[in-house]
Amino acid sequence: MTSTPVSDRELVLSRLIDAPCEKVYRAWTDAEILKQWFAPKPWSTPHAELDVRPGGSTLVVMSDPNGNQFPNRGIYLEIVPNRKLVITDAYSSAWEPSEKPFFTAVLTFEDEGGKTRYTARARHRTVEDKEAHEKMGFHEGWGQCADQLEAVAKAL
Amino acid sequence: MTSTPVSDRELVLSRLIDAPCEKVYRAWTDAEILKQWFAPKPWSTPHAELDVRPGGSTLVVMSDPNGNQFPNRGIYLEIVPNRKLVITDAYSSAWEPSEKPFFTAVLTFEDEGGKTRYTARARHRTVEDKEAHEKMGFHEGWGQCADQLEAVAKAL
Repeated sequence: MTSTPVSDRELVLSRLIDAPCEKVYRAWTDAEILKQWFAPKPWSTPHAELDVRPGGSTLVVMSDPNGNQFPNRGIYLEIVPNRKLVITDAYSSAWEPSEKPFFTAVLTFEDEGGKTRYTARARHRTVEDKEAHEKMGFHEGWGQCADQLEAVAKAL
Repeated sequence: MTSTPVSDRELVLSRLIDAPCEKVYRAWTDAEILKQWFAPKPWSTPHAELDVRPGGSTLVVMSDPNGNQFPNRGIYLEIVPNRKLVITDAYSSAWEPSEKPFFTAVLTFEDEGGKTRYTARARHRTVEDKEAHEKMGFHEGWGQCADQLEAVAKAL
């Protein structure tokens, strides 16, 4: 297990979450549960569609406190139940290339004595995209969402 | 079966090949066979590595008549044996985003009375990339290679 970036185009968040892998994975793959934690509060997630299979589409709509909605479309590239998810915005559906792909998320869930080593890697095409993502608040945003994810997964 | 582009970012080649789907598919997935037809002559294909599984890498090196070599790296996104292959240069390996993704190839092999309806779709991120690909000689190049593919598949 490493939580250091493997390249200068990657951002990494790693957390030990006090819930088993199965529940953390479920919080990522069940739309009703994902809506409870996916956006950093006071943002919210009013809508989520998750077709969890390789090539399956995902649509997650986030909302700011004023009700402005921001849809995020992507697809699943790899699924290892309870262990790993790879999701990208490089395709809007299988296999329609996106005009402006931004990043590929590689999420791993590893057992550590009943808890979960949760590692989220955001891989970008360019160093510029990685730096832009960092300035958008990757670490703060994904960190806050990891706290929310932990609270939801613990309660399952 | 349709051979018209589904978007203005797509190029399509469709051919009826006088060989069964299994042989056309094999010519695409066996490295030694692929090397016999992949580059339009007098270009050649001195080297090919094909890890034919979802997420598997492919490296195909083409050579011009002077021996200048041009490596093409990509990965397989979807595999349906004897029916479909989806290959992209959007990742150099699973799951390392490429800096300059160009296109995603969706190849289908459909039985038509013992012959193969071979359809190659090149899907681009932008209309500009599609037009550039067309000017590079997509139709001529892929057309010539389809002739070469047919000759090789018939002889298997």
